[in-house]
Order: sequence, then C-alpha cells, then structure tokens
Amino acid sequence: MNHEPQALAPLQPVGASFELLARDDQARRGLLHTAHGAVNTPAFMPVGTAATVKAMLPGSVAATGTEIVLANTYHLMLRPGAERVAALGGLHRFMNWDRPLLTDSGGFQVMSLAGLRTLGEDGVVFKSHLDGSLHALGPERSVEIQELLDTDIAMCFDECTPFPATREQAETSMLLSMRWAERSRARFRPRPGRGLFGIVQGGVYLDLRARSVMALTKIGFEGYAIGGLAVGEGQAAMFQVVEQTAPLLPAEQPRYLMGVGKPDDLVGAVMRGIDLFDCVLPTRSGRTGQAFTRRGTLNMRNARHGGDDRPIDDGCDCPACRGYSRAYIHHLIRAQEILGVMLLTWHNLHYYQALMAGLRAAIEGGRMAEFAAGFEAEQGLGDIPSLADRSTG
Amino acid sequence: MNHEPQALAPLQPVGASFELLARDDQARRGLLHTAHGAVNTPAFMPVGTAATVKAMLPGSVAATGTEIVLANTYHLMLRPGAERVAALGGLHRFMNWDRPLLTDSGGFQVMSLAGLRTLGEDGVVFKSHLDGSLHALGPERSVEIQELLDTDIAMCFDECTPFPATREQAETSMLLSMRWAERSRARFRPRPGRGLFGIVQGGVYLDLRARSVMALTKIGFEGYAIGGLAVGEGQAAMFQVVEQTAPLLPAEQPRYLMGVGKPDDLVGAVMRGIDLFDCVLPTRSGRTGQAFTRRGTLNMRNARHGGDDRPIDDGCDCPACRGYSRAYIHHLIRAQEILGVMLLTWHNLHYYQALMAGLRAAIEGGRMAEFAAGFEAEQGLGDIPSLADRSTG
Repeated sequence: MNHEPQALAPLQPVGASFELLARDDQARRGLLHTAHGAVNTPAFMPVGTAATVKAMLPGSVAATGTEIVLANTYHLMLRPGAERVAALGGLHRFMNWDRPLLTDSGGFQVMSLAGLRTLGEDGVVFKSHLDGSLHALGPERSVEIQELLDTDIAMCFDECTPFPATREQAETSMLLSMRWAERSRARFRPRPGRGLFGIVQGGVYLDLRARSVMALTKIGFEGYAIGGLAVGEGQAAMFQVVEQTAPLLPAEQPRYLMGVGKPDDLVGAVMRGIDLFDCVLPTRSGRTGQAFTRRGTLNMRNARHGGDDRPIDDGCDCPACRGYSRAYIHHLIRAQEILGVMLLTWHNLHYYQALMAGLRAAIEGGRMAEFAAGFEAEQGLGDIPSLADRSTG
Repeated sequence: MNHEPQALAPLQPVGASFELLARDDQARRGLLHTAHGAVNTPAFMPVGTAATVKAMLPGSVAATGTEIVLANTYHLMLRPGAERVAALGGLHRFMNWDRPLLTDSGGFQVMSLAGLRTLGEDGVVFKSHLDGSLHALGPERSVEIQELLDTDIAMCFDECTPFPATREQAETSMLLSMRWAERSRARFRPRPGRGLFGIVQGGVYLDLRARSVMALTKIGFEGYAIGGLAVGEGQAAMFQVVEQTAPLLPAEQPRYLMGVGKPDDLVGAVMRGIDLFDCVLPTRSGRTGQAFTRRGTLNMRNARHGGDDRPIDDGCDCPACRGYSRAYIHHLIRAQEILGVMLLTWHNLHYYQALMAGLRAAIEGGRMAEFAAGFEAEQGLGDIPSLADRSTG
C-alpha cells in the first residue's frame, strides 16, 4: 500500500474565462479574463490588421480606453509570416501591445481579399493579394498560426456565408463551418488564459442559426461569435438574427458580433446581449476624413469646417479635440497630411471607447433603455450650426 | 516751463535677440531669445511645411528636444491662406505649437515648386502647384504673410541663386536679393521677441558673398542666414563658403545655414560658426524607410532587418528604439503602415536633436574637435553585424 497521498490528476489549465457582473434586460456587463489581463465588456476591439492599429502608437490605443485589439491571421501569415512572429517572441512583443489580443481565423479575408481560391473539405487554397503566391489555409493551420502568434483569443476557421444566399447554400456553408469548428477545437491546445471561440453561421435563417448554436455548444468553446452578419443584410435583419440567436448561447460565456459596426449597431446589439465587437470603421474613417461625434458623423473635408476654430466636439477630451480646431484638421485632411489621419483615428477610437464606457455604466445603473434613447436623440440632432467663415482669404 | 518729467521716447521693442554663451574656436554655443521662448544653439529646426512636422504630434516634436520649427510661407499662403491662419489666431495656435517658429520667405519654393513664373524687380508671379491659380509674391507681401502667420523669425524675400551659375548671374541675382532685403526690412514691423533675418547670397563666389554680407549688415537684421547652398555645389564648396562667410557676420547675432543638411554637414558647419539649421532630411527619410544612427544610415526596407529583434540603435532612447525591433519596423515599412513612418520620423528627429545636444555640450566643454573626430569615426563603423535570420518562415 502506498502511503503517499494519491497524486492529483494534473489540473486542466483554466482558459480565458468570462465573469458576468450585471444585466439590464438582455444587456450584459462583464469581464473577460485572459492571459494578458481582463477586458471590461461590452468591449470594442480596434482592428490592428497588420500588427498595428493604423496611425496609432500602442500607448495611444490604450489611452483611448482600448483593452483588447484584433489582429488578422490572413495578413500576418502572408507578411511577416506566423513563424517569424513566433521567432520574434509572439505578436504582443512584436507590436509592443501587452494587453489582450484576439485574432480572427483568416477565413473571412481569404474569401474577400485573396484571389483564385479553391474551397474543399480541408480548407482553402488561395493566391496572396500581395505577390500572387499560393497558400493553403484550413482549420488546423489557422489554429496553428493563431498559436504561433500567441493570441489570447483564437477564432475557429469558418466560411463567412455570403449575402444573399439561398437556404440550401446557407445550410451547406454552415455545416462545413461546424465540421471546421470541431477540427479547430481538436487542434487547439489549451493554455492558461487562452481561449478558442466558435462562430455561429446560418445566414439570415434563424433555424439554421439555432442548429449552428447547438452544434457549437455541443463541442464547447470559451466564447461564441455570431459571424456572417454586416455583409449586406441590413441592420433590421442583423438585429433580428442577434435577438433570436444570442439568448440561445450559454449565458456564462462571452458573445462576440463579428465585424460590427456603426455606433448605432453597437448600441442595438448590446441591448440584444452582445459583449464584444470589432470593426475597421473608426480607424478607416479616420483615413477618409470622417469624424464620429455624439451628434452624428462629420466629413472634415467639407468647406464648412475650413474657418471654424471650434473643436470637432467640445464635449470630447481626446487630444484632437483638446488641441486642434476643425479648421486645422480640415486643412490637414485637404493637404493629405499624416497628422490629420493620426488625429481623426485617435478621435474616432476615443469616441467608440467612450460610447462603450457609457454602455457599461448604463447597464450597471440599470438605465440601458434611457441611454439608448438619449444616444439616438443626440445622434439625430446633427452637427452644431456652421460658423460664418471668418477668413478674408 | 513744464514741471513734469520729460516724456521718454517710446522704447523700441526689443526684437529677437541672441546671447553668445561659449565658443570653441569658431564653434558657438548660444541662446536665441524669441517671443515664444529661447532656443539653445546650435539648433536644428525640423520642417513643418504645411503647419505640421509630418507624422508627428507637436508634443512628440517637443519630446525629441526640438525648440523651434520651420514652416513654409509658400505652402501656407496657398493652403489654408495667410489671412485664414491670422483669423484663426496665428500659426502657433493653428498648429498647436507654443514654442518658437521660423518661417521662410517663400522665395525658394516659388523657384523650385511653382510653375510658369515671371521674375521682376517687384517679385515673382507664379502658378500654384495645387490648382494652377496665379499668385504674386515679393518682399512686401512675403513679410506681410509672415506677419499674418505671426512667426517669431521671419526671413527676407530672396532669390536662391541656382547652381551652377556664372559669376555674372550670381552677381545679378545677389544684387536683386539685396534690394529685396532692403524692402523686406522696410516692410517688417518690429515687435517684441520677433526678428527678421537677412540672407547672404552670391553663389560659390566668395567676393560676392562678402559684398552681400556688407550690404545686409548695413541694413541691419536680428540675424543672418547663408542661403543658396546645398543646391548641388557639394560639401567641400559649401564648407568653403561657410568658412569664409561666417567670420564676416556680426559675432553677436545668430547665423543660419539654410536647408542643411546631413549629420556630417551639421557637424562641419557648426565647427565653421553656424548656429541654426533646417532640413527635411530626418522627416523625409522617415517616410522612405531610412534611419539615421551613430553608425551611419540604415535602409529599414532591407531584408537583413526582417528577422532582427534588436532595436535600430541600442544606445538610442527614442520610443522607436525603446519599444520596437528592427524586424517590426521593417515589417511596417514593407506593409506601408503609417506607424512605420511615425516611428522612423520620431527616431530620426531624436537622432538629429541628440546630435545637436552633443555639439552644444562639446562646445561648452571646449572639446569640439574631439567630438567631431569621434562622430566621424563612429559613422565610419557602419551598421552592427547582421543577425542570422531566425525565422523558419
């Protein structure tokens, strides 16, 4: 007889986990715990496609209130390459971002950016949009790449069902994604504070969405995304899918609406139970001269701003609004100066993160409905009245 | 009889002034006092062409050690317009830079950038490079524009004599610039802490340079620039002109070598008595992937940096060198990411300003010659040996 205490079975590493702090109707206030710290949800993830949130230093990204950044597997596998990032110590160190990272699976970009692809049971063969070279990507390689990047949250490889799609197309596509989800899970190696999220597909067909949820929850993931939306179906259809699908997902795990969206999309989706978002809109709009404000979106190229010495939004305390006039930002955008992109990107991310902070506080305070009504009313006001152009030139 | 004390004649406002703190042979250590603070000389002025040092927030420009920025009259008169900048509170407020500013006269850019110009005794008529519109610029309007911009240091309108030029061409051009200098001085309205600098011309003809100095010092300015160099004559010819011309200038006033230059140009010109410099090189090079270092210039696009986890310069404490590897910056430049331009511009300005700080300390310590020898030896070393590329990708 062995007198030593029986050896305990090795503890399963605790993956990324979710803590639900408060609810207001369907809206949820939570904390996503990862290997690189916690994320307050509902959270917006700026997109750092090529290992950089465009035109922002990482310290500035953090200063906007951002706690998690999304990076793209497709772009990084092509340049600089996943093995190179791994040899350089992983994506956090490479891009000097020590907070949580989420990587997508590459599936969406392969379908939308790459050329001449063949799709089969094992994945996709595609041509790089950079140099035309051939690459393969499937569930195992996608998860392997995300592991090489050392991401906190990896996503299952899936097919983003196009819109419109017939019911049969959507079903076939969804079932393929579910088989890939199983293969992604099998390839994923659990590590402390890391997680793999499954992605619900099924187009706008609610019963397909429900079957997809069942398939994924049977496999089991650290979180669940709703994919295949914001692809042209319109906000009403998107909200309907979210409203019907979110309640089917496990309450104790985070829910991520991929590729969404405009400010009012975020407010509406949070009210329908979503915890995580990503979208290129605030950063891309910064590069095209758009500024998001409480009173709607401004086009800073517009001549009405040329002589206006007021900030974009006098209630905003981002560096662009504290230090610079509309006239100056208008000038920078007209002159195609990089500083214009830097300031507008910062402002837009600040706006998005302030909106998320407002949503979180509203849920905590049980006044989500009032917050949403106030948001909508203020957006409807439109921009402050124009100044007469003071310039004599 | 009037028992009241006799009214004093109104005090002449004290313009921008120069304080000579130390000398080492011809090299000078000084302070240029302006309405927006003092500038430690020898000083390097980054170029903020269109009211922005490209890809840099003003706070970051200051963090490099920059105390004065140059802005371009030609660009600003065309966009957004001098009257508009004045209506918006002047250039400092417009670009959120509360330290000293120097503006050029527009003369150089009119000759190099604008189209279809006619040159006469009163100035130049030219076509805007932006929209082809016709504009006139001469000594009076140039000084007026610089006053509207509310600059600390204005420059006389001059013709930058092309290289090569015959003796006769150089003389005719220089004499025109001297007449314009007189008209610029007449139009300039003295204000406290503001100054107008004259510009020595004369090409590579030393006697013409001497005559130009005599003409300018007879008029009298708050400082003197040597113009018409770094236009193709080569470093040896440039140094000869500087060496022969600088000692003719008043010792108690600042000397500015316009449009110069490479790091070794700065060291050589400081040894020959120059106090102020401006050049687009550190900022423009940042946009083309070049990094200045103690051991010479690196091309960050080069594949040798692709797997290199070391900073650009491990002795540099700029944000680019403290937070990022050569591999990452290489990746950003290859991917044409704005952050690559931001980091390299910051690094290059930091390098230039650290070089100027080193020169100032060397002059104070009476070891300028050793500093120059050490600088040259280190530049000659070339880059640190390449790492084997650790990537398996």
